[in-house]
Amino acid sequence: MKLIGILICSLLSFQFTYAESGYQLWLRYHQIRNQKILIEYQHNIRLVYIESSSPTSAILKSEIVNGLKGLLNKKISITKNKVEADLLFNINTKTATNSEEGFDIHSIKNKDNKFKVYISAKKDIGLLYGGFHFLRILQNEQSIDTININSSPSLSIRILNHWDNLNRSIERGYAGISIFNWHTLPDYIDQRYIDYARANASIGINGTVLTNVNANATILTTSYLLKVKALADLFRPYGIKVYLTARFSAPIELDKLKTADPLNSEVQRWWKNKAKEIYELIPDFGGFLVKANSEGQPGPQNYGRSHSDGANMLADAVAPYHGIIIWRAFVYNNEIAEDRFKQAYNEFKPLDGNFKKNVLIQVKNGPIDFQPREPFHPLIGAMPKTPMMMEVQLTQEYLGQATHLVYEAPMFKEILQTDSYVKGTNSSIASIINGDLFEHQQMNGMSGVANIGNDINWCGHPFAQANWYAFGRLTWNTNLTSEEIATEWIKQTFGTQQESIKSIQKIMLGSYESMVEYMTPLGLHHIMGNGNHYGPLPWGNSFSRADWNPVYYHKADSLGIGFNRTSSGTNALSQYNKEVQIKWADSSTCDEKYLLFFHHVSWNHPMKSGRNLWNELCYTYNDGVERVKEMERLWISTKNNIDGDRYHQVEQLLKIQLKEAEWWRDACLLYFQTFSKQPFPKNFPLPPHDLNYYQSLQFPYAPGNAQ
Amino acid sequence: MKLIGILICSLLSFQFTYAESGYQLWLRYHQIRNQKILIEYQHNIRLVYIESSSPTSAILKSEIVNGLKGLLNKKISITKNKVEADLLFNINTKTATNSEEGFDIHSIKNKDNKFKVYISAKKDIGLLYGGFHFLRILQNEQSIDTININSSPSLSIRILNHWDNLNRSIERGYAGISIFNWHTLPDYIDQRYIDYARANASIGINGTVLTNVNANATILTTSYLLKVKALADLFRPYGIKVYLTARFSAPIELDKLKTADPLNSEVQRWWKNKAKEIYELIPDFGGFLVKANSEGQPGPQNYGRSHSDGANMLADAVAPYHGIIIWRAFVYNNEIAEDRFKQAYNEFKPLDGNFKKNVLIQVKNGPIDFQPREPFHPLIGAMPKTPMMMEVQLTQEYLGQATHLVYEAPMFKEILQTDSYVKGTNSSIASIINGDLFEHQQMNGMSGVANIGNDINWCGHPFAQANWYAFGRLTWNTNLTSEEIATEWIKQTFGTQQESIKSIQKIMLGSYESMVEYMTPLGLHHIMGNGNHYGPLPWGNSFSRADWNPVYYHKADSLGIGFNRTSSGTNALSQYNKEVQIKWADSSTCDEKYLLFFHHVSWNHPMKSGRNLWNELCYTYNDGVERVKEMERLWISTKNNIDGDRYHQVEQLLKIQLKEAEWWRDACLLYFQTFSKQPFPKNFPLPPHDLNYYQSLQFPYAPGNAQ
Repeated sequence: MKLIGILICSLLSFQFTYAESGYQLWLRYHQIRNQKILIEYQHNIRLVYIESSSPTSAILKSEIVNGLKGLLNKKISITKNKVEADLLFNINTKTATNSEEGFDIHSIKNKDNKFKVYISAKKDIGLLYGGFHFLRILQNEQSIDTININSSPSLSIRILNHWDNLNRSIERGYAGISIFNWHTLPDYIDQRYIDYARANASIGINGTVLTNVNANATILTTSYLLKVKALADLFRPYGIKVYLTARFSAPIELDKLKTADPLNSEVQRWWKNKAKEIYELIPDFGGFLVKANSEGQPGPQNYGRSHSDGANMLADAVAPYHGIIIWRAFVYNNEIAEDRFKQAYNEFKPLDGNFKKNVLIQVKNGPIDFQPREPFHPLIGAMPKTPMMMEVQLTQEYLGQATHLVYEAPMFKEILQTDSYVKGTNSSIASIINGDLFEHQQMNGMSGVANIGNDINWCGHPFAQANWYAFGRLTWNTNLTSEEIATEWIKQTFGTQQESIKSIQKIMLGSYESMVEYMTPLGLHHIMGNGNHYGPLPWGNSFSRADWNPVYYHKADSLGIGFNRTSSGTNALSQYNKEVQIKWADSSTCDEKYLLFFHHVSWNHPMKSGRNLWNELCYTYNDGVERVKEMERLWISTKNNIDGDRYHQVEQLLKIQLKEAEWWRDACLLYFQTFSKQPFPKNFPLPPHDLNYYQSLQFPYAPGNAQ
Repeated sequence: MKLIGILICSLLSFQFTYAESGYQLWLRYHQIRNQKILIEYQHNIRLVYIESSSPTSAILKSEIVNGLKGLLNKKISITKNKVEADLLFNINTKTATNSEEGFDIHSIKNKDNKFKVYISAKKDIGLLYGGFHFLRILQNEQSIDTININSSPSLSIRILNHWDNLNRSIERGYAGISIFNWHTLPDYIDQRYIDYARANASIGINGTVLTNVNANATILTTSYLLKVKALADLFRPYGIKVYLTARFSAPIELDKLKTADPLNSEVQRWWKNKAKEIYELIPDFGGFLVKANSEGQPGPQNYGRSHSDGANMLADAVAPYHGIIIWRAFVYNNEIAEDRFKQAYNEFKPLDGNFKKNVLIQVKNGPIDFQPREPFHPLIGAMPKTPMMMEVQLTQEYLGQATHLVYEAPMFKEILQTDSYVKGTNSSIASIINGDLFEHQQMNGMSGVANIGNDINWCGHPFAQANWYAFGRLTWNTNLTSEEIATEWIKQTFGTQQESIKSIQKIMLGSYESMVEYMTPLGLHHIMGNGNHYGPLPWGNSFSRADWNPVYYHKADSLGIGFNRTSSGTNALSQYNKEVQIKWADSSTCDEKYLLFFHHVSWNHPMKSGRNLWNELCYTYNDGVERVKEMERLWISTKNNIDGDRYHQVEQLLKIQLKEAEWWRDACLLYFQTFSKQPFPKNFPLPPHDLNYYQSLQFPYAPGNAQ
């Protein structure tokens, strides 16, 4: 009883400051709330047997012991006696899943009506994934007496991209600075690194690109590679491979070569030697991610060479060690008189078949740049001979950044489920990305631009953690629904109180559509603040690069609004398959969520609602605002079930979100009204300020600018 | 018992990740360890009476209830019945301390041999300080039946200077980015802000300068002032006034005035209006801190005016509201052919008597710049008509930054206790700073350049918190010893286990001298890395400004080493009083810790040890290294009494400290050896690399550079 007293006090005093700081993410392991289920678990799980004694199984052991101690309020022992154990982890080369990372979980009844839970995998890492999955089942208070799971990952590469600079600033980071403290590495191993690895392993993420795609060659110097090695050694038993971004001009910058021409033999030798150096330190180094000839980054085109020349040169360097090259297709050039939408496709499609086997092309989900809503990127599916990864952005650069609650799973699902028709019907984006459609089973995947920083709760907004979580879960199993993922995340993060779960589900599942409505409804895109992408700036026209200016994208004029990408316009639509073109080519039948993405239509264009476009725009913007108000009401309803700290955080953030949603609505509509010349609908909430006011707002220190 | 179970689990699961994250600082309120004392406390403290119902007393209430709940493992009630209470906080205008912020604590025996504890103060803030002090007594497990304390602050202004930029980067910050998130203010109030205020109030800090002395005028715009107001409103009940740095050219930058000349009436009007705007928002705004005509900052000299012209113009603007101006004397100009040491004194002393009554001059503790060791600044005491504050640096810019354990209290005490002789003997620096010597009782103080960032544990190194703590405690009571402060900090931070307290005391109390020895022994100074001030760079000579280059400071040559500041040199010594000059003017009698600060002496100069200078330098550098090894041994001895997380953090950091101490020793000695041409002493540990190696090291992303 004395010990208990001490423990309680420690907890209480901590609670006063940060009862639920968010640091623990979805791995809180609080005691099971449902007493019946708790007793069932306590009764059935007493002794655990873990085969193998690798570093990975040591992690599994500690995670299981700690997880069960918390969930079951009971010390669980590890036994060496397989027979007496209730929960068995064993290596089994004949698992049903037949994948290197997969696992089986089965509960099998004994004669005495008791049952044992078997978790089997081919490899240690599968056991660890299985262990985390089993803990997830308990955290979700699901029955364990009839488990029958064979689980394998949908995608082979499930990777986070950190846009983290060596000085710890994060490009488009909204949750503090980088968790990777390069200055104190390799000597200082922060507890953060360990907990980062735990969190990733718990949701199946198996790779991390530690550095910004706007790359710095310094990371390839020996002293920095020793720092990378320290992280790689730490992450290895968690099944996480380390990747780096390669600055194409590194041979010039680091060793004063005269060129970085990929066909120059000295350059080739430089990269081969560099790869050798890296692999001697990190035998399982994943490979390089490269942003080349994009937004000012150097690349093969500086030497009159193609993207494939560049990628292949690097591919040859890492091939002896089974490394891969992830080459980004995010290219667009304002010196080319062509719709930005079309440029990646135009440049990469002709190269299909030219890439070495260990090259993947990484394409963003949409053709522009992580907008609130875009149709799928036409390059996805257009290069059948080339393995392709899809890049999504967890950090909410264009999605309200750290102050807006936006659950992104519905956006990911929307894209994954879209049929590209590239091989007839049932050519979903998911089936391309997972390698099925074009038989790239070994090389396929998704990358998520990380939303992680050194904020105590990792991601800034307490709900931003859900996007990291959803990315992991969805890349492991692309068939999971947004709702399933939200539900398990909520239970693990906030607890299992039914009423609050339902309210939080509603908040999350409606949040994406709400944000699209109050920011960029009906196919509008890229009308955010210059550079920082914060807040509305539809009038923005100050960049010398036309394709960075909002007016380039919405093309509002006295006749109407929208970007004509049909055959009478830039004909970007032609990059899609016929079936897709048909769906979107006619402004009177085009899915209205993409209307202004593909069509310049009159302010009086008739919408399905019966309204004209102007009125529809007004009502849609306002619907987005109203939905945020509903989110606020739903959140208030959870008050008694949520700890004070997080309740209050989210409460404050929703107020900011509402304020900013209204700002978006008011600023955009006042501006577009100068073209539509139409009044606001009757009884419409009128903006509290005039357009001048919104145009005068300045945010010189808004976060997320490149530093 | 069920509730208890749940609480325990919560705690245990948190422990797995961050049992002792350091977030709670010295306010952990863990249960009293000594059972006898615990029972005594529990028996005697049951009911608390708190007079007054102000916001400050609400904070007091919550702090007392939570503190006692943790410390005593017992729910304490607040009563409205004075008679039945055991612990009484009451407002009493006749307190013995007779100061606005002070408090009395007395325990008074009853007839029944029980006693009551009375905490009295003139004002609410005194009650809060008294409450924190009472909790400190408990945390230190001291007897409470005979308390008899009258406590008043030694200094009236006890203020932190944050060198925090609006983009959240921190100049010379080593613990993450700024805790002040200007982007989300005023709408989002981070729990950090509250806990920052609690921590400061608990040690008596009563002011904070929120912005970098290298100032940004944007903070003075209305939208930012609203953000400042939100913080000021929050900090007010904690007794903390908010100050800002004023960029002298703000009228030009913000409102396009043609000049910032302090004698121009339009400029004067601008600042008056700005002050009015600020005080309407923040009636108790503290005032402005100004760095002018220093390291490139604009100032009155740009217009041919003096520092007093500039300071007085601002002083007039804030005077109607009882605001003050803190004007920095950190000025030096490489275009003047004069020892940097002398320039502040030369420029400011003639201005004594010219400043308005609400101006304080802020002087760094030493004449150069926060070096590991400097003699006191000769300007302190040289301006009897002008109130003066001393600025010390908690962030360890030149003291090993975030990876070296350096407890700074001995450094602060060394300066405070030094006799300046400016009014005969007993003219200690403390007596000048506290206003006694020249009767500036209303206006006096110390400022500490904050070492706080958004790292989970606030200060980066777990022991860096001790410097924040020591600054607060020492400015409240300059008579406290380094040991007393260390002891109470250790008990509150790590617990009250006797054996570990002794080891940690030894580590802390020796750490300052150790650092001086392995970095800049015998009066060496400013031989750190260029710009970032990281690591040894005694050969540094690449800055165009001579006075930023290490070679300017050590002046090593074939004849010897050191900066001749005697009458045969720059005669900086003449800026001190005669008695001080006599102590340091003769190289054969000069305190050896300042030898090379004032003298250029031969490599064969005989030292008190009997060695020549070269050998003494070698042995002293090595002593510093050996002391770090001893720190490591002492730390290992605490292993069983320290939580695993912090034990492991410090263990790793001490390894880095040892490595860097050896690096300092080896690099500096190899370099100085090129001048001394003398061998290392017999059996001396030889450097593992040659000088070229040390000179080739590069740290392009070392933290703390201005951004």
